Amino acid sequence: MIPKYNYKLIIAYDGTAYSGWQVQPNATSVQALIQDAIKTITRREVTLIGSGRTDAGVHALGQVAHFFCDLSLDLFRVIASINGLLPKDIRVLSIEEMPLTFHAQHNAIRKTYRYHLNLESFQNPFRRSYSWHVHGAINLDVLKEASQMFIGTHDFTSFANESYKGSAAKDPVRNLQHVNIMPEEGGVYLELTANGFLYKMVRNIVGTLVEIAAGKLPVKVIPEMFAAKDRRVAGQAAPPHGLFLVQVDYPESGLS
Amino acid sequence: MIPKYNYKLIIAYDGTAYSGWQVQPNATSVQALIQDAIKTITRREVTLIGSGRTDAGVHALGQVAHFFCDLSLDLFRVIASINGLLPKDIRVLSIEEMPLTFHAQHNAIRKTYRYHLNLESFQNPFRRSYSWHVHGAINLDVLKEASQMFIGTHDFTSFANESYKGSAAKDPVRNLQHVNIMPEEGGVYLELTANGFLYKMVRNIVGTLVEIAAGKLPVKVIPEMFAAKDRRVAGQAAPPHGLFLVQVDYPESGLS
Repeated sequence: MIPKYNYKLIIAYDGTAYSGWQVQPNATSVQALIQDAIKTITRREVTLIGSGRTDAGVHALGQVAHFFCDLSLDLFRVIASINGLLPKDIRVLSIEEMPLTFHAQHNAIRKTYRYHLNLESFQNPFRRSYSWHVHGAINLDVLKEASQMFIGTHDFTSFANESYKGSAAKDPVRNLQHVNIMPEEGGVYLELTANGFLYKMVRNIVGTLVEIAAGKLPVKVIPEMFAAKDRRVAGQAAPPHGLFLVQVDYPESGLS
Repeated sequence: MIPKYNYKLIIAYDGTAYSGWQVQPNATSVQALIQDAIKTITRREVTLIGSGRTDAGVHALGQVAHFFCDLSLDLFRVIASINGLLPKDIRVLSIEEMPLTFHAQHNAIRKTYRYHLNLESFQNPFRRSYSWHVHGAINLDVLKEASQMFIGTHDFTSFANESYKGSAAKDPVRNLQHVNIMPEEGGVYLELTANGFLYKMVRNIVGTLVEIAAGKLPVKVIPEMFAAKDRRVAGQAAPPHGLFLVQVDYPESGLS
């Protein structure tokens, strides 16, 4: 197949039922389901390339992916057909044609995640799959103070797990542009924007912040954690079901 | 068992997995699960009486129920124990002691329901179990205008199904105090408050309103529907999963 056209998709999914974004043997992934729907409609062997993977149970409001095709597609009809084939917990929100040089992973310049904390005495049944129910008292002022210490350009080795391939990222330096703590019904959410995230970085930062806000660790350990460059010194990872990939940004042209 | 104490519960549940509130043979009901948890904790044969039933798939933010017991319960411990035994999609939000004459169904003076309409081109995956995805254009001005025609004291026979027992309510007159249309992300919700609701009344009103707002029926049919006193003249029932029982009100004393 000659790649004449390059199509960019924005996708929302409830990750509860899936093994994650990425195709894996003997497991149902979001990528595989959308790719299969595109294959059915185009009758072509396409490969859907995501901006990055999300783990089992992690959700997305604005995952981005792209695929090449030799067909000029009627996008209005194609999006309806894809959604008609997909289960209701995955929805393609938009599809647009991009230059052939656009790559959903390589051209991404910024990603935004949200992590939801449910702080009610008894977890709201409607938030059970979309937030981490934190038992016990959390000091929101401490949470806010500690969260600001992650902003900036740092070596995030202590907050990164080895990737699923068993190897650490080559360059563990990332620029975290903001960490906002926003109130919502029953709790708060943390919004983190960076030029890129290492494997499990958001969940490791949130897990560490919650330990600090619960008074189990002092705020001043954060610089020591950064300096150690050792995953074992930071807190436990927060569970996956509180995490949402909100947005992936590209340069105006779609290329970088 | 001598009923020395009367305990009132406020309960939230995600109705997706259940056959409804009420105990039914060969089906899992919310009432049965909570009643079983109370029996396990109190070691008493209690009967949990709800303010009214909700159908399969219908949700609750503030269902009210009560049970008699001969034990003086440590309410702080009991609520934690009940929630520990319940699945995560059901939560008892509060428990308090009431006079022995309090009855969750008979003393209710007012109920409030919300019905959520998702109006996005493609249904938000996170709203799929909690809203009705209405395809096609809906005129919100017409929805608002038509909704106001339900307010007041009416014979709601045309908007009531026969109950599950196969009999219509004895008195089909109800006072609908307000129908508010509120904007929310991706759509709107309708909030209805009345001194009581007939079986499937909210879903039948919402189904009729959506047909009118979609231009399938003129607004002026509503008085004709009321006058006909015949369920067959009104619109189809809206699906159960958009409906939430929000609040049940009682007089200050809890008695009426």
